[in-house]
Amino acid sequence: MTRYQHLATLLAQRIHQGLYRPGERLPSVRVLSQEHGVSISTVQQAYHRLEEQMLISPQPRSGYFVSARYASPPVPAITRPAQRPVEITHWDAVRGLLDVRKESDVMQLGSGMPDVTSTSLKPLWKIISRQGMKQDASLLQYGSLLGVTALREQIARLAVDGGCRLSADEIVTTTGCQEALFLCLRAVCEPGDIIAVESPTFYGMMQTLRSYGVKVIEIPTDSINGLSLEALELALDQWPIKAVFVVPNCNNPLGFIMPEARKRGLMTLAQRFDIAIIEDDVYGELAYEYPRPTTLKSLDDDGRVLLCSSFSKVMAPGLRVGWVAPGRYFDRVLHMKYVNSGGGVIQTQAAVAEFIHQGHYLPHLRRMRTQYQRNQCRFTSFVRHYFPEGLCVSRPQGGFLMWIELPEAFDGIRLNRRLAERGTQVAVGSLFSASGKYRNCVRLNYALPCTEETERALKMIGEEIEREMVLACKA
Amino acid sequence: MTRYQHLATLLAQRIHQGLYRPGERLPSVRVLSQEHGVSISTVQQAYHRLEEQMLISPQPRSGYFVSARYASPPVPAITRPAQRPVEITHWDAVRGLLDVRKESDVMQLGSGMPDVTSTSLKPLWKIISRQGMKQDASLLQYGSLLGVTALREQIARLAVDGGCRLSADEIVTTTGCQEALFLCLRAVCEPGDIIAVESPTFYGMMQTLRSYGVKVIEIPTDSINGLSLEALELALDQWPIKAVFVVPNCNNPLGFIMPEARKRGLMTLAQRFDIAIIEDDVYGELAYEYPRPTTLKSLDDDGRVLLCSSFSKVMAPGLRVGWVAPGRYFDRVLHMKYVNSGGGVIQTQAAVAEFIHQGHYLPHLRRMRTQYQRNQCRFTSFVRHYFPEGLCVSRPQGGFLMWIELPEAFDGIRLNRRLAERGTQVAVGSLFSASGKYRNCVRLNYALPCTEETERALKMIGEEIEREMVLACKA
Repeated sequence: MTRYQHLATLLAQRIHQGLYRPGERLPSVRVLSQEHGVSISTVQQAYHRLEEQMLISPQPRSGYFVSARYASPPVPAITRPAQRPVEITHWDAVRGLLDVRKESDVMQLGSGMPDVTSTSLKPLWKIISRQGMKQDASLLQYGSLLGVTALREQIARLAVDGGCRLSADEIVTTTGCQEALFLCLRAVCEPGDIIAVESPTFYGMMQTLRSYGVKVIEIPTDSINGLSLEALELALDQWPIKAVFVVPNCNNPLGFIMPEARKRGLMTLAQRFDIAIIEDDVYGELAYEYPRPTTLKSLDDDGRVLLCSSFSKVMAPGLRVGWVAPGRYFDRVLHMKYVNSGGGVIQTQAAVAEFIHQGHYLPHLRRMRTQYQRNQCRFTSFVRHYFPEGLCVSRPQGGFLMWIELPEAFDGIRLNRRLAERGTQVAVGSLFSASGKYRNCVRLNYALPCTEETERALKMIGEEIEREMVLACKA
Repeated sequence: MTRYQHLATLLAQRIHQGLYRPGERLPSVRVLSQEHGVSISTVQQAYHRLEEQMLISPQPRSGYFVSARYASPPVPAITRPAQRPVEITHWDAVRGLLDVRKESDVMQLGSGMPDVTSTSLKPLWKIISRQGMKQDASLLQYGSLLGVTALREQIARLAVDGGCRLSADEIVTTTGCQEALFLCLRAVCEPGDIIAVESPTFYGMMQTLRSYGVKVIEIPTDSINGLSLEALELALDQWPIKAVFVVPNCNNPLGFIMPEARKRGLMTLAQRFDIAIIEDDVYGELAYEYPRPTTLKSLDDDGRVLLCSSFSKVMAPGLRVGWVAPGRYFDRVLHMKYVNSGGGVIQTQAAVAEFIHQGHYLPHLRRMRTQYQRNQCRFTSFVRHYFPEGLCVSRPQGGFLMWIELPEAFDGIRLNRRLAERGTQVAVGSLFSASGKYRNCVRLNYALPCTEETERALKMIGEEIEREMVLACKA
């Protein structure tokens, strides 16, 4: 990307994120030139570009203004789930989404799949090929239960970017983050206990909670600032909650990064009520801001945070390389790990370790971050163009998932059924709630490079949403 | 191997297995020649070889006799565990065995590691190398929750050899057999329930039972015929047992193959008392007899058998490619699978499928079977030569694990501590019992090709056993 393209993208994001509002004047060419250390003409080129995109319009002698008609849709308001523990349902819908018997001709915008076709992953293939040629028999043997040492060392090094000081021996590798979450849940509570979660929250964790027989209390969550601490405190006062599960960085599905002060507040609450925190950081590395946001684990001084992550969203989910730093729950998690799967796949762990060791990880990460951020702008434009008015759209601060809230009466399940006939799928909001809320919401995946096909799919989804909204109004 | 070597090995096995007893006359040269379709001189060469090994001795005009002084040690008698449900302990010892922070200079004879250095595995490396070159992005994506279809098709095909008719859609792939066992346990019972197991039984399952909070009733088990059906029936009469866990083919650790009639008897009991059967078949393909023994699953007509297996013992444990055919528990197992690890590693699953598809599996299997059977003879000789008298040794009918029973007062844990100082390890029997029995037993792994180093290690273990026996007698 040239300088002016880079600047244009940045400004477009600020507009989409609502930092510059419709009708508001943009900074002068001179101010921007100084702020970004680029030439006047670079700024002018960037502004021309945004003008072409009809995001901004010039007004003689006054400078550039954000176009009124390109106002970003509002973000969803803070959620209001039921404030009592409930049991979880909805496995059938999740199973449908997971697409057990895969149909390859469906455009799957409902899953959490990253883009694994990026050229920056090519070195990984080379490493795998070389593994095959070297024929190192130790890759075929049982390894250490903790996982490949070289990998754990690299994970410990990367964790520093999130503010954590971990040693390799504090980390247990897992089969994706999903296994890590399950191990943590089993380590911190018993069936019948109550766990607090953000609402909406990741459906995989919801199914984990369900399968383990714990009850869930959904905490109101804001699409900009995350979990409401006030609501959590009320719940902690009222119920014997054992732990809270959160995705504080690049939340799934809302996309927020919990502000630092709120993270600290959450830690204080956890200490006061002596509960554990299961932290899911799978999207944390994909934050659009740099340096990446800190983990809750970095604020943890008594080992109550179990930090779970994986290389699934950043590199490739098929590798199933995840990990957990379980703090004071280390021994319990290790025992569960043995029982759960008896150790991980040595070869893929070794391949990921080598990929990082050879220096391919950070360039790949930068590339994916940029791609996902750019796609977010494109998707937001598509949604603005092709979707009916009256909906709220999240402003993801990282990752590649967008949450769209439609009017209350809207039925996302019926929408998805219609979409299936037309060869595409979204994730229906009700998967993200224990109590069947958010049926009027959908989650979209914008990981793949934007093509005309993507645009066509979004247009089609917009048509179906419109149709469904008409039906919903009549009902 | 030449013909006479082959014949000599076969005869040696029969002697070791007690089919020809010490002092008994062996068949005449002519009879053997006809029976095996080989020349008289081949039989003579084979007999000379056995004579050199001092396994047999000629008596003028009477033929060959099994040497009296090379009598095989007796097999362990049927076990007598406590006949009540107990909770399980011993995780620390298992963790020690798993060797969490691996020391590579220890000769590990305690684990269940197969030989992964065989040249017949070379095609697998080629396949992996080619995967790296082909750069098929679908290997990096989330796959079907059931696992790679091509692999499940191959598994269904192979299952026919054990007498099973399975379709690919009845199979769920897992992270090794360990995950399969855990999924099955969760599918068939709740914490607090009682499960019946062979005694001794696989320590990994014991830890699984422990971690899930179920109680165990250990059923007396015979080292030739397996689980005592009479004892099981008594237990079923007396306790509300939910399921029985068995390793009927090439049992771990006793090595027996349950006779067909007893398998049928077990099925009848399971139906009468309406319990599930969790069948672990990881060593089943490595039976020394051909065709391989049938699975309990092949006798299952109402879906109550959950057949678990993996490619860990037959190919390589580091691949972590396991599977389960859960019968009527399919839906529950699939949900657990999602929660447990969210799907398997696509690339290794695809590699195993391709290995079988290209026709490398059966030749590899034949080769390993032969190697393990030959090693069993060698190990039995070593034990006879270097270990003190007065011990019982199992006669494995497949796999690569040998169970040795020492006098009651013997302390295997103290032995292992001494062995650690001298750079080797065995598995202590107490790992295989919920109630801490079998501290006087050890399990040896004889998978690796026999070298002088192996012989030295066995000699050294023999010395330490002798020393420990003296200590035990004094105490």
